[in-house]
Amino acid sequence: MTDSTGLKNRGKTKADVEDRRKAAEEYTGTELKTVSNYGFDPELASTNIENMIGTVQIPLGYAGPIKIEGDCASGEYLVPLATTEGALVASISRGMSVMNASGGVRTTVVSDFMTRAPVLKVNGIQHGKEVSSWIEAHMDALKETVAGTTSHGKLIGIDIYPDGRSLYLRCKFDTGDAMGMNMATIAAEAVCRKIEGATGAVMVSVSGNMCSDKKPAAINMITGRGKVVLAECTIPKDVVENKLHTTAYAIAETNYRKNLVGSSIAGTLGANAHAANMVAAIYIATGQDPAQVVGGSMTLTTCENIDDDLYICVRMPTVEVGTVGGGTKLPCQSEALNMMGCLGQGKAKKLAEIVAATVLAGELSTLAAQSAGELGKAHQALGR
Amino acid sequence: MTDSTGLKNRGKTKADVEDRRKAAEEYTGTELKTVSNYGFDPELASTNIENMIGTVQIPLGYAGPIKIEGDCASGEYLVPLATTEGALVASISRGMSVMNASGGVRTTVVSDFMTRAPVLKVNGIQHGKEVSSWIEAHMDALKETVAGTTSHGKLIGIDIYPDGRSLYLRCKFDTGDAMGMNMATIAAEAVCRKIEGATGAVMVSVSGNMCSDKKPAAINMITGRGKVVLAECTIPKDVVENKLHTTAYAIAETNYRKNLVGSSIAGTLGANAHAANMVAAIYIATGQDPAQVVGGSMTLTTCENIDDDLYICVRMPTVEVGTVGGGTKLPCQSEALNMMGCLGQGKAKKLAEIVAATVLAGELSTLAAQSAGELGKAHQALGR
Amino acid sequence: MTDSTGLKNRGKTKADVEDRRKAAEEYTGTELKTVSNYGFDPELASTNIENMIGTVQIPLGYAGPIKIEGDCASGEYLVPLATTEGALVASISRGMSVMNASGGVRTTVVSDFMTRAPVLKVNGIQHGKEVSSWIEAHMDALKETVAGTTSHGKLIGIDIYPDGRSLYLRCKFDTGDAMGMNMATIAAEAVCRKIEGATGAVMVSVSGNMCSDKKPAAINMITGRGKVVLAECTIPKDVVENKLHTTAYAIAETNYRKNLVGSSIAGTLGANAHAANMVAAIYIATGQDPAQVVGGSMTLTTCENIDDDLYICVRMPTVEVGTVGGGTKLPCQSEALNMMGCLGQGKAKKLAEIVAATVLAGELSTLAAQSAGELGKAHQALGR
Amino acid sequence: MTDSTGLKNRGKTKADVEDRRKAAEEYTGTELKTVSNYGFDPELASTNIENMIGTVQIPLGYAGPIKIEGDCASGEYLVPLATTEGALVASISRGMSVMNASGGVRTTVVSDFMTRAPVLKVNGIQHGKEVSSWIEAHMDALKETVAGTTSHGKLIGIDIYPDGRSLYLRCKFDTGDAMGMNMATIAAEAVCRKIEGATGAVMVSVSGNMCSDKKPAAINMITGRGKVVLAECTIPKDVVENKLHTTAYAIAETNYRKNLVGSSIAGTLGANAHAANMVAAIYIATGQDPAQVVGGSMTLTTCENIDDDLYICVRMPTVEVGTVGGGTKLPCQSEALNMMGCLGQGKAKKLAEIVAATVLAGELSTLAAQSAGELGKAHQALGR
Repeated sequence: MTDSTGLKNRGKTKADVEDRRKAAEEYTGTELKTVSNYGFDPELASTNIENMIGTVQIPLGYAGPIKIEGDCASGEYLVPLATTEGALVASISRGMSVMNASGGVRTTVVSDFMTRAPVLKVNGIQHGKEVSSWIEAHMDALKETVAGTTSHGKLIGIDIYPDGRSLYLRCKFDTGDAMGMNMATIAAEAVCRKIEGATGAVMVSVSGNMCSDKKPAAINMITGRGKVVLAECTIPKDVVENKLHTTAYAIAETNYRKNLVGSSIAGTLGANAHAANMVAAIYIATGQDPAQVVGGSMTLTTCENIDDDLYICVRMPTVEVGTVGGGTKLPCQSEALNMMGCLGQGKAKKLAEIVAATVLAGELSTLAAQSAGELGKAHQALGR
Repeated sequence: MTDSTGLKNRGKTKADVEDRRKAAEEYTGTELKTVSNYGFDPELASTNIENMIGTVQIPLGYAGPIKIEGDCASGEYLVPLATTEGALVASISRGMSVMNASGGVRTTVVSDFMTRAPVLKVNGIQHGKEVSSWIEAHMDALKETVAGTTSHGKLIGIDIYPDGRSLYLRCKFDTGDAMGMNMATIAAEAVCRKIEGATGAVMVSVSGNMCSDKKPAAINMITGRGKVVLAECTIPKDVVENKLHTTAYAIAETNYRKNLVGSSIAGTLGANAHAANMVAAIYIATGQDPAQVVGGSMTLTTCENIDDDLYICVRMPTVEVGTVGGGTKLPCQSEALNMMGCLGQGKAKKLAEIVAATVLAGELSTLAAQSAGELGKAHQALGR
Repeated sequence: MTDSTGLKNRGKTKADVEDRRKAAEEYTGTELKTVSNYGFDPELASTNIENMIGTVQIPLGYAGPIKIEGDCASGEYLVPLATTEGALVASISRGMSVMNASGGVRTTVVSDFMTRAPVLKVNGIQHGKEVSSWIEAHMDALKETVAGTTSHGKLIGIDIYPDGRSLYLRCKFDTGDAMGMNMATIAAEAVCRKIEGATGAVMVSVSGNMCSDKKPAAINMITGRGKVVLAECTIPKDVVENKLHTTAYAIAETNYRKNLVGSSIAGTLGANAHAANMVAAIYIATGQDPAQVVGGSMTLTTCENIDDDLYICVRMPTVEVGTVGGGTKLPCQSEALNMMGCLGQGKAKKLAEIVAATVLAGELSTLAAQSAGELGKAHQALGR
Repeated sequence: MTDSTGLKNRGKTKADVEDRRKAAEEYTGTELKTVSNYGFDPELASTNIENMIGTVQIPLGYAGPIKIEGDCASGEYLVPLATTEGALVASISRGMSVMNASGGVRTTVVSDFMTRAPVLKVNGIQHGKEVSSWIEAHMDALKETVAGTTSHGKLIGIDIYPDGRSLYLRCKFDTGDAMGMNMATIAAEAVCRKIEGATGAVMVSVSGNMCSDKKPAAINMITGRGKVVLAECTIPKDVVENKLHTTAYAIAETNYRKNLVGSSIAGTLGANAHAANMVAAIYIATGQDPAQVVGGSMTLTTCENIDDDLYICVRMPTVEVGTVGGGTKLPCQSEALNMMGCLGQGKAKKLAEIVAATVLAGELSTLAAQSAGELGKAHQALGR
């Protein structure tokens, strides 16, 4: 009986969740015990999920403290990381410790906008030109249209990509401290309705995949989406040798053969060791959208041997994070953001910089470990 | 005081975790209350994380039941989904309901192997040829070497990519029901040590990025990594119209302009609406590696209008999942796997097929929603 | 004796060329007879080649006339094509004939600029920000600098891509009717020298490969390089059936399975049947840089079945052509340009539109041929 | 009058060509004089072009001699180059001279096969599996089928890529010394007809774009098409300094910032300075298909500073060349091939190695030139 009632129960209270969980137990003939033993009122997640039956509890650790001297993040931070991959947190922590001993990480946010790219259908080239001209001539009006849909977001501009009977509009928004996909979607649709009314073009989809959300797309890697963030550190020779047990030369070589050349032959967008690991761990801990790990996976890691010191840098072209809205307001996730002083308004760029610093730590640690083997002996045999 | 002792505490017991959590509270001046209120003994996660201070609790719901007629999955399943993105579960459920009304989903696993691709350093072209020849001549011995490192994994073969002084070996393993990165890494290193001893080549990194793990790499999309999985369904005309309130024509057009053409101009690997969403939600629920959502994001979605019925299919070239090891053995995650009868030996391909069926449901629902607007009127104006 | 003198002869006269040719004959022990039998004074090529020993004579044919109604090309044109691939010219001509019977081709140039992207070396993130700020603050001065290097080119803007110790400057130029790489290179170097003087940045290479010249780069496909050109035609049902012996449905299906889906799985930039063939044949005939066929190969071809009429379109994001300078001034090449009224000032966009119309013709013809087989019968068996 | 008769004249004789040329002159109102003044009987080109009106004469020079010690090319060669880009031949020659002074170039062909990838339409997943199984079970029969279509080509194997209702068959052929597209196309079609008869699958296109011919496709870069070729040279420190006026360090740095990092951010397939230039010049000189310059543009160039000597290498994954058939039998082109002893049977791999050696020379020269500026001073200021 539980089954038929519970699986159809659409309620959001604790009792509803329990009812549904029991129905799922009965339907599947399995026990769902641990998932029901969690620490918050499920009504707090009422806008985050449907058919809730409990929670999945991901182990939460921290790495750090990491010392960051950035444009938005400045200080020392414990970085919360949710993962089930043993050794990941320890590895990141090692990287942070080494960077602290080198004066810390320097970070900056190069640009910041969220995109949504509807695709319109037009009659053909001539119609497409007319629609494009109308859009360019009415940009101020379209900005007002957007202002009418949201108090937090602003339309920055629209990049137009015409292709015969399809017209792609990559709308760029300032979404404040929200990751901003929802407001961007609503705003983009409003923009399209205006355009439809004036031009006879028809919105086929509010997303024409040139946004591009949660897909590995060169357009994001090249022009950016969310925050474009850089993080760098220079590790002095003695720190490389004493703490990482390798050399700047060996790390730079590993980065060259692995991240640059290997990634090139493999046809990869971006070039890094395992940026997605760090991104996933922070995103899950802090209530970001974990599917946007895809954007983080296009990170570019570069290493340079500067007179036996190691310069290491990550360029992250697609850091899609927010500190308000979405999963950030759930209790655990809020606590994790709070650990870094990253909850709420005015914090999204700071969070993005901490993300980049953490990715840098993880890249450093892994590259160092991979280069620390018997490479020394090897170089003698092979010429360096 | 808590600080200095707690942050340095490397213990794994509940008391250690509490000690560390309190130190983190003190260090950051914030309260970490909900993260400490979870339902399992942290020692169970002792190999999954370091510096544990609690858990992040992700809302868990389910979609389905979904009826699957696959080579490995066969029956009706409730699919556990962990997400904080409102409407996702509901949307996937809608897709499943529509597919059930259409006879269910057909799935298959096309191929199945895990890769690890070390990069060796050689003296140049001639040396590279010698090393390649040695490897090809000693494949049986290398398979034995691998057998000595693992009882679950087997070396299937090695694809060799020479480039001057770098030699990339994409080692392909049967890893049974484990996702298999760890055993692949250990085995690949053992393979390299053999090669080093015999040929004078030097392993620079056990991963030369042609694996390619957690990066958006064409090599995976083309040749596969983990499981290559297909899922398809044909939705009869009346179901499309009555349950999705659109037409096969409109959905196929949306897929064409958005997923195929839009993705092409954006320079995307794969072509889909939001496959990463479904992949992330299942992976997190079932203890998979969430950074491997990247592989799932390269899904190809195709739609065909067949005499007003809708044929829809997803091709997922990089489904990297396991049903033993890693995060799958944690309590919540085990329960989630159990819901689908996917815990333990002999279940990994079944899980991969359920993943693909779920992605198909999410793609269908989103494409239908995007195509259901005022498109009808539009077609009249624009010629269909 | 001829050898030692001739191979070292650096002269440019007919006699020098002959001297050198004979030396080459002697050195190689082969006869170089036909290559020396050509129709123009080699001194006319004195800035086009070194070590000249004659010419390679490529068969020249024409396709057309093709009727174009474009923004820059308007009228009927015979298109000169140099090729050694049998059936290519005939196939293109067939496509043109079909399009003429359908009212001709509509073309437009969406945007037009040439790029050169130097890479500067900076000290790190902070220095990079300072250099970027300086550039943005001194854009007018940099435009003047460019004006001092060329009377034909103008600096339109600079897109800045920072990455740690590298700073990429994608300089965009209006180069008039020249393809413009040379003036862009000189101008970009002058820009860099100014920046070096003011900021301490150092130009490592005048091309940092984000230009990107003669490489298949997503940045060109997405943001354009040279001319972004569209060409379209709608072929009425009866013309498709009577002249192409197939259907709009079959052609659209071929384009879908082959150009869109097949190209996606293959990891291709662009999606077309054989655009590079047409581009190569026109480029060689008219003295363009044949290595820039690479840009043309990223063409996107789309086909739509509109109530049994066929709509076909090409989007060419990287048409790098000129009608002055380079190879265009050689006698044969000038004659070929003249055939289309495309020699000299004010003609480059017109040429680009004719290129796109010709590519469209070739795409149409090939797609139609491939779809004309036994597909009809097939559809019956398989459901359409 | 000339017009109507001449433009419709389909003849192949010298008189026909003249008749047609005059008609074209009349139609276009321009003079076609130089194009008609060439050195061979146009009937020799009767299978190479239609609507012939003359020739385009491309200046032909040579670079070299270049000393090659390869698996197939061994000796010293003058390399014929057809180009209109001033300084290209001189630059390549400089590179060759430097490499000769360093002991010459080492080359090898790693693999060699031509591909054609039809796309079949099937009913869905289950049908696709049946067709795939049939193909695998009948590979010997399919090889015989191919043997019946060509005496020069052999079917090596078929890689199958299923996607729902589309099945892509990447057929791999040994095509001897022909580039082989024609025989591959005929053979692939014959293969498909067999499959159609036995399985009910339907060939939608003999090319499903996974071949992939003349398109920038990752599948070719990764798995190879035509010949995969390597060429390398180590330039001693004193040669770098005295002949190139730069350092191994500076060249390696230029390659790193430009070819590796710059290409990565630009989303490029391959990573080189201007490989397409060299490829185009040799291909046009020797009667190769110039549209296949696209394959050459995916070259990967790597440079290493080995104790102040410079190691440089090119990896060319897609060298599609032949020494019989196509344009190679035209008089000028035959002469050019003859210069290198590359005309006719048994020469294709040799040609491929000379192509790679020439590309290496051009890459070296350009990288050296770009690195030779004021970089020395710069390094002092910036830390190396």
